[in-house]
Amino acid sequence: MKKLIGEANELVSQMVEGMVHAHPELYGRVEGFNVICRADGAKSGKVGLVSGGGSGHEPAHAGYVGDGMLDAAVCGEVFTSPTPDMVLEGIKAADGGNGVLLVVKNYAGDVMNFELAAELADAEGIKVDHVVVADDVAITNKEDRRGVAGTVFVHKIAGAAAASGKSLDEVKALAEKVAANVRSMGMAVEPCYMPVSGKPGFDLNEEEMEIGIGIHGERGVERKPTTNVDAIVDDLLDHLKKEVSPGEVAVMVNGMGGTPLSELYVTYHFVAKKLEDAGYSLKRKYVGNYMTSLEMHGFSITLLPLDEELTSYLDAPSAALGFKL
Amino acid sequence: MKKLIGEANELVSQMVEGMVHAHPELYGRVEGFNVICRADGAKSGKVGLVSGGGSGHEPAHAGYVGDGMLDAAVCGEVFTSPTPDMVLEGIKAADGGNGVLLVVKNYAGDVMNFELAAELADAEGIKVDHVVVADDVAITNKEDRRGVAGTVFVHKIAGAAAASGKSLDEVKALAEKVAANVRSMGMAVEPCYMPVSGKPGFDLNEEEMEIGIGIHGERGVERKPTTNVDAIVDDLLDHLKKEVSPGEVAVMVNGMGGTPLSELYVTYHFVAKKLEDAGYSLKRKYVGNYMTSLEMHGFSITLLPLDEELTSYLDAPSAALGFKL
Repeated sequence: MKKLIGEANELVSQMVEGMVHAHPELYGRVEGFNVICRADGAKSGKVGLVSGGGSGHEPAHAGYVGDGMLDAAVCGEVFTSPTPDMVLEGIKAADGGNGVLLVVKNYAGDVMNFELAAELADAEGIKVDHVVVADDVAITNKEDRRGVAGTVFVHKIAGAAAASGKSLDEVKALAEKVAANVRSMGMAVEPCYMPVSGKPGFDLNEEEMEIGIGIHGERGVERKPTTNVDAIVDDLLDHLKKEVSPGEVAVMVNGMGGTPLSELYVTYHFVAKKLEDAGYSLKRKYVGNYMTSLEMHGFSITLLPLDEELTSYLDAPSAALGFKL
Repeated sequence: MKKLIGEANELVSQMVEGMVHAHPELYGRVEGFNVICRADGAKSGKVGLVSGGGSGHEPAHAGYVGDGMLDAAVCGEVFTSPTPDMVLEGIKAADGGNGVLLVVKNYAGDVMNFELAAELADAEGIKVDHVVVADDVAITNKEDRRGVAGTVFVHKIAGAAAASGKSLDEVKALAEKVAANVRSMGMAVEPCYMPVSGKPGFDLNEEEMEIGIGIHGERGVERKPTTNVDAIVDDLLDHLKKEVSPGEVAVMVNGMGGTPLSELYVTYHFVAKKLEDAGYSLKRKYVGNYMTSLEMHGFSITLLPLDEELTSYLDAPSAALGFKL
């Protein structure tokens, strides 16, 4: 395990420092916390949008802070939920007086700590609501599904709605609509390594890959012999097609952090062909690193059924570095 | 070596297919060639700007095709110069009647084939000139220096100048000015692997890294025990500071393809601190994957001295996916 970092326990803090120093026109840092907010502060009258969770998923979530997307990102330690007091700081930094929506990925720690923070904010007179994203079809039981790359579509669409002046209830309803319909599944040929322990999320030999991985180094639901990406895409799409009917969709081929962009476009080439052959119409396409897992070599596919409303919010301007439009 | 590809010998073709399918509003493909051009064709009266080389450096070079940057990118096989007839196709696709400038990285094959293509184009009545980028200070002898991440600044600045209506001579003079002053140096803790042979560019054990690597899997100029990125940054900056005097600069921390974004921001954190302590003023900052080497895990640092003219071209709008402004 080789890492390009300083002291492992300062990784998140130094990353946040680096982000704010590199992009001062975009980012501020809540003093004393690993919380990134908008450089120009909370927007008066706009619904605030906050997300976050463990770090290691960059550009998620700080890369989605900016006009048209998030107002604050709470950066926990690597693969570790941020504490409620950190989330509270994010809420306060995003509050423009019209309420704050939290976008939470479905992990027990995140859900608990974001809900606790919402209660703390409520006690301070800030109206807070939240939506939980659980898009990972690798997990059969819907309640146990993890929030993965589909979360980025929730950020984008809820962010655009908030920027357009929608109320907290309206932004939440849109976020719920995306969360209810977006589906993802991922795989990896190489694991990621925990920065402090140096341990891999799982051990694979040269002829193995994991299908149905999570984004925190979790093993997949199935270990298989490696094959070419043509067959891997079939495998993942078989699961996704069971839950997303043919029609107009947005598709995302998301890299897990250590995957070359050339491989993501080759992967997309197969994804597009197979989806079109199966009767899907690819209205919007996204290829790149959106929700990563440190240096993991792999990818995920996300499908979101589109209507006019969702498409217009997907296409709305965004200043966020991770989703610039 | 694990690759997320189909047949290795179709990698570039399928990548190009994927890019054009994913971004039809931006990209066209020259029929029958791995050459990406502008979807809306050559701009009448504008100087055309063409770059390219071997593939494996994505987003370079196709990711820089778009309004404000390149008009065509010629995608050779992985780490292999494109043939003169491919470059000629790129030139023809970029020619708007006002001449075409080729941005060539300093590799014998690239220089030879781009020059040959320029002669072929000349014979067809297209005025073509070229600029060679050789920014890699790892190589002591200036004539032998490789073109690496600094090339992206040449694309951006020459592209903005061309978009603003400058003549071929003026665009070339600006490109030469950037090429004459930009300096880069890179390192890696893990090599990249050739897609067809499966062989790594170099073998490193768990305690070793390469300083002064190229972008085609070449070994570095020095092999050292791994250390934290704080010390690695000192090492690279020692070389760069010898050639770029303190003053206003643009700095780029560029990932080599397999490096998590978190590590690039931690690296940037140290780069910024050390440069500022040494009297440099960081006017523009770029952190991300700009000029990669497949899945190599490492980074490079690029410095470009800035004046008002270069800064304004750096800041000009760009529709290119790899440098969106």
